[in-house]
Amino acid sequence: MTLQYDGTAYNGWQVQSSGTTIQGLLQDSLFRLTGESVSVVGAGRTDAGVHALEQVASFASGSLLETGIMRRALNAMLPSDIRVMDIAETDGDFHPRYAARAKRYIYVIANTQDVPVFLSRYLWQVRFPLDVEAMQTASFCVIGRHDFSSFRGSGCSAKTTVRTIHRLGVEKTGEMPFLFTAFRGDFIKISIEGDGFLRHMVRNLVGTLVEVGRGRTRALDMRGILEAKDRRRAGPAAPPGGLFLDKVIY
Amino acid sequence: MTLQYDGTAYNGWQVQSSGTTIQGLLQDSLFRLTGESVSVVGAGRTDAGVHALEQVASFASGSLLETGIMRRALNAMLPSDIRVMDIAETDGDFHPRYAARAKRYIYVIANTQDVPVFLSRYLWQVRFPLDVEAMQTASFCVIGRHDFSSFRGSGCSAKTTVRTIHRLGVEKTGEMPFLFTAFRGDFIKISIEGDGFLRHMVRNLVGTLVEVGRGRTRALDMRGILEAKDRRRAGPAAPPGGLFLDKVIY
Repeated sequence: MTLQYDGTAYNGWQVQSSGTTIQGLLQDSLFRLTGESVSVVGAGRTDAGVHALEQVASFASGSLLETGIMRRALNAMLPSDIRVMDIAETDGDFHPRYAARAKRYIYVIANTQDVPVFLSRYLWQVRFPLDVEAMQTASFCVIGRHDFSSFRGSGCSAKTTVRTIHRLGVEKTGEMPFLFTAFRGDFIKISIEGDGFLRHMVRNLVGTLVEVGRGRTRALDMRGILEAKDRRRAGPAAPPGGLFLDKVIY
Repeated sequence: MTLQYDGTAYNGWQVQSSGTTIQGLLQDSLFRLTGESVSVVGAGRTDAGVHALEQVASFASGSLLETGIMRRALNAMLPSDIRVMDIAETDGDFHPRYAARAKRYIYVIANTQDVPVFLSRYLWQVRFPLDVEAMQTASFCVIGRHDFSSFRGSGCSAKTTVRTIHRLGVEKTGEMPFLFTAFRGDFIKISIEGDGFLRHMVRNLVGTLVEVGRGRTRALDMRGILEAKDRRRAGPAAPPGGLFLDKVIY
């Protein structure tokens, strides 16, 4: 199934010992619908407060319900900030994470004094003027295959810290991306595509790029930060609200 | 001051015995800023979950802070879903409610199967197809000076139930209003302007118009509902998330 969600109210994708999670709500809804205790496997684990324009997840079910009916029934049970966009049958061996070739995230920064309240949960408002060219320069050395230990969040359980970033774009734009394009202002849209991401990696990269944009870190120091393989060298994590899982690529 | 807020997280405008309110947060922030315990008076009391594109409020202060500085300081203290848009000095006898000639509200209905999650808190999703022409016919008899007892919510403390509705528009539109115009779909925008509104009056009117749109109430019965002066004759209240205080007119 493909899903869209506003992550603001949730303790992230993955079931936790406390707090409501998106995976947990999906599993509960499927149990109510089919009577089956299923495990819903996501393509990526989004953090608390992170949104998804298109998350992919799978589950095994013996239900005879037609997929369109199942989708509507799930949407009737789920809160309105989680929507099942589509359900399709797959091979039994499809795994949404292992099968993914790449994932794309988008991070939205509003580099402006005033932001309409209705957009505030979908962006990071940075009031200091940011030097977008310096951020672009800094971003170049991140592209490619590297050890991303410097951008790995605490509690990350990944076995290897090597990942490949295919694309990393830092773009100035005069409008809020996605559904909100009627509001004009100074936005920065950061798109990042890679074969996988460590815990908090996108937010730590964005936080470090903003340090560069503010002039607290030089663009040319980005390579040294990456090569240090030391989390303390990189900037703080950017807040979760600006981050969207945009697309899982198969 | 003029304010914009997303009411989702709040127990309405007015200070209550429990729950966080917008008035309460403003008074707390002003106390922290000026050391003065002030009463912030709003032009209208929005319910829990109702939003404001432009609310007007006033307070008396002996602070020597320049209004622009005060605005920025308040915004730095307030959560990001409440923004002070402007602060200006007024006559000591200005009262935002008594001075208002009229208030305008907008109610947004999405008459569609699927709504992006990022818009869901700003509309009422009605899945049954609505007959907009019937809703328009029903709306005509509400315009003018009437006793609105049939649309008065419980707990309303108003001394008189007579109000004048200057305008009531029911409009089909292909896009979500305000900041979200990039999403296209079947929307219904209800705008209502009047000299004042009873508690839940706009939501009760909208809920009754939707009963008409669904065919459960005939358009021509609207006059009888109004004349009955009996809350039980009108439809249920529309949910708060679709309602916006649009403008206070002086």
